[in-house]
Amino acid sequence: MRKFTSVKDVADIHKIVGDAIELKEKPLLDSKLGIGKTLGIIFMNPSLRSRISTQKAAMNLGLNTIVINMEKDCWALETRDNVIMDEIAGEHIKEAAAVLGEYCDIIAVRDLPKMKSRDDDYSENFLKKLIEYSDVPVISLECGTLHPLQSLADLITIEENKRIKKPKVVLTWAPHIKPLPQAVPNSFSEWMCRAQREGLLDFVITHPKGLELKSEFTEGATIDYDQNHALSDADFVYVKSWSSYSDYGENFSNGGDWFFDNQKLKFTNDAYVMHCLPVRRGVDIADEILDGPNSLVIKEAGNRVYAAQIILKEILGKL
Amino acid sequence: MRKFTSVKDVADIHKIVGDAIELKEKPLLDSKLGIGKTLGIIFMNPSLRSRISTQKAAMNLGLNTIVINMEKDCWALETRDNVIMDEIAGEHIKEAAAVLGEYCDIIAVRDLPKMKSRDDDYSENFLKKLIEYSDVPVISLECGTLHPLQSLADLITIEENKRIKKPKVVLTWAPHIKPLPQAVPNSFSEWMCRAQREGLLDFVITHPKGLELKSEFTEGATIDYDQNHALSDADFVYVKSWSSYSDYGENFSNGGDWFFDNQKLKFTNDAYVMHCLPVRRGVDIADEILDGPNSLVIKEAGNRVYAAQIILKEILGKL
Amino acid sequence: MRKFTSVKDVADIHKIVGDAIELKEKPLLDSKLGIGKTLGIIFMNPSLRSRISTQKAAMNLGLNTIVINMEKDCWALETRDNVIMDEIAGEHIKEAAAVLGEYCDIIAVRDLPKMKSRDDDYSENFLKKLIEYSDVPVISLECGTLHPLQSLADLITIEENKRIKKPKVVLTWAPHIKPLPQAVPNSFSEWMCRAQREGLLDFVITHPKGLELKSEFTEGATIDYDQNHALSDADFVYVKSWSSYSDYGENFSNGGDWFFDNQKLKFTNDAYVMHCLPVRRGVDIADEILDGPNSLVIKEAGNRVYAAQIILKEILGKL
Repeated sequence: MRKFTSVKDVADIHKIVGDAIELKEKPLLDSKLGIGKTLGIIFMNPSLRSRISTQKAAMNLGLNTIVINMEKDCWALETRDNVIMDEIAGEHIKEAAAVLGEYCDIIAVRDLPKMKSRDDDYSENFLKKLIEYSDVPVISLECGTLHPLQSLADLITIEENKRIKKPKVVLTWAPHIKPLPQAVPNSFSEWMCRAQREGLLDFVITHPKGLELKSEFTEGATIDYDQNHALSDADFVYVKSWSSYSDYGENFSNGGDWFFDNQKLKFTNDAYVMHCLPVRRGVDIADEILDGPNSLVIKEAGNRVYAAQIILKEILGKL
Repeated sequence: MRKFTSVKDVADIHKIVGDAIELKEKPLLDSKLGIGKTLGIIFMNPSLRSRISTQKAAMNLGLNTIVINMEKDCWALETRDNVIMDEIAGEHIKEAAAVLGEYCDIIAVRDLPKMKSRDDDYSENFLKKLIEYSDVPVISLECGTLHPLQSLADLITIEENKRIKKPKVVLTWAPHIKPLPQAVPNSFSEWMCRAQREGLLDFVITHPKGLELKSEFTEGATIDYDQNHALSDADFVYVKSWSSYSDYGENFSNGGDWFFDNQKLKFTNDAYVMHCLPVRRGVDIADEILDGPNSLVIKEAGNRVYAAQIILKEILGKL
Repeated sequence: MRKFTSVKDVADIHKIVGDAIELKEKPLLDSKLGIGKTLGIIFMNPSLRSRISTQKAAMNLGLNTIVINMEKDCWALETRDNVIMDEIAGEHIKEAAAVLGEYCDIIAVRDLPKMKSRDDDYSENFLKKLIEYSDVPVISLECGTLHPLQSLADLITIEENKRIKKPKVVLTWAPHIKPLPQAVPNSFSEWMCRAQREGLLDFVITHPKGLELKSEFTEGATIDYDQNHALSDADFVYVKSWSSYSDYGENFSNGGDWFFDNQKLKFTNDAYVMHCLPVRRGVDIADEILDGPNSLVIKEAGNRVYAAQIILKEILGKL
């Protein structure tokens, strides 16, 4: 594996989930694998889970870790080509990435979409240039369009908790106080569609009309605008807010009845409830869900360690 | 030991001080004890001594360390229960703590009092919820009411430097340019009262009237409003400013003559002078004291490593 | 070696460059040398290369590293003597340095000149007090007047890439959008003058009149105000902007024709082009240079690891 920015970088998702679950049993089994090698973990934005779980995964493998809040610890970066750099940015991604590539054997990066221009965000310009100019394997910790380590952790969590061979998994939109990126739902959908194609589960997406995700990430999913209907018989419900893709970044103000609480849970097959976190209690999910027995959100976050670790292990194996 | 937030968490203070002094001789003796385990060190506020000494202590024990400036690196946290999270806080302490508990075997935390509401600060809401929801051992690096690692380092320093079996220790209030928390003097007093009960020293507190600490932390201490009298025959003087507990957070503007300098030192038994640091030179203590031969402030700060290390060792032994 | 703040701290520059190149072949050969010892890396300002390369070098030697953004993570520092600390600074460098000395076996520090007062910047007050009060070996990561690890990395890069025994090295001034410190050119010049004295190369400095560096750093260098003439037959060109030393911190607004591009390169002996980074593309150097085959800037940055590592190794050998 030379990079991990999408489910497309994984040859066999069933195998990688199985390997991750195995590794979870003995997380220190490969504690010498990364000795003398360095993982650079680069943040353009805040992060709790990605920050800590990635460090922990790396340390489990014996890797050195260097964590950088890029624009606070270092310099504001220019990412456009062929501009005269007479503005705020003091360094170009070309140099910054190449220098990171000198110091790091692997780079993990978070660069959230700025939610101003769809073209800019979906170009994943920063991520692509980091990959190109660093010339080392790069792992996405959520970038413009996808959050693949989250989705891998989600699939691990589903695999660990499923009560039937082929569970029904529903991604349901939820309201929020501000427009959120589509990276998590895009990525979850991409992974679930792949899992569905491989016969691992059935996948349904439900959201208000107008909140369709970009179709390349939802190919094969059933899209159902009737939330109650979509939830029926669900074994896992993934609750997530996102803003409009077509009317880019616009928040959907009319979705209060999509709030997920115990009333909604009743439509399901006593489903497990998932969320990538952070979550605003009382805004998209009710306290009674998060504090109740059906919530998997903490275990899901816990699995971020093993998602990161199996990917780091795969990459280390190819260095 | 399942947590360390007060002297009450220590079964035998005499023994723990002795163990710390022993460990100081050979700090790397247990360098394999923490292998494969992770200490999360969480800061809600700035820190120099706690930040570095805790990392160093952990590394001496072979622990992995992950340091987080919580609200800068991650998300602003909501700590109230049952609120609709439609304000600035993007994550609830319930989730943040539980997730930290997934990633860390032990958590150390600094959460200084905000000095606005006594009830809020003294409730130690954040610390208590971190303990409850993380479900792993938690070490306080100064929270709402106490700073126990500082006090343990102080007691180690007294034990190492005492010239008589049962020295007289005096906590003396000092002026400051702004209202400071009571956590350090509360904690020092709590530890010294315990040490006095166990026959290790005599303890006197001196401060202007109106600056009484909360009585639960001063039980057994002699309180003397006459500084000169209190200082007489002192073997150790602990200089510290704090603001009013009764008129909460109010600074005491009339205490200029409580400034600690060589004139004050003359009243003592050539006492050693202690301070938790940081200190504002010329405001609460004179340069001549800090630069003079009686100051223990640097050694005291150095002992923060061994205070942290003995506590981490105790906790690791019970994991 | 008890400190590293200037070329003067190096007994034999030829040997240290050779040792660094040797160590680059087997960077993990001494991976036990620093076990149980701690390097504190202190930043008063942003840093990418110094930040990561120093950590990496330390980890290659088995050192523990603790990285501090001093005034964000800790407290604002007072560096003047005998002042009443009733302003913003909450801690004095005397205490902060002494405490760091308790926790760290070696300290590396970046403290960029503030560009307001030449006397203040050139006094290196902060660095000197850190050395005095910490009482442990200190490594400069660029302070008021010099950036010796950069210069050592530069000399390593010249040694690795030279095509003739005694190459001609030219330091050429370049325009910028704001006044930059003189630390990099001072330091480069100090190292090159030393290398020239030892017969390793010929050294020429070219810049507009009025931009003379402080003479103590340029002793022995040929200073040529005619850029084209200076560049002729150059084997290495070091491009760097700096502001006026005599009219301190004043930017030179009239130097547009000193911009370094392929036209300028033609005057040279197909020279390698060097720069300490970060660089503003299109402002001091053209994209065509940075993206072209003559640029050494990334390799130069990469050599920061081995510059730091050989210095740390020297210091560890004397601890």
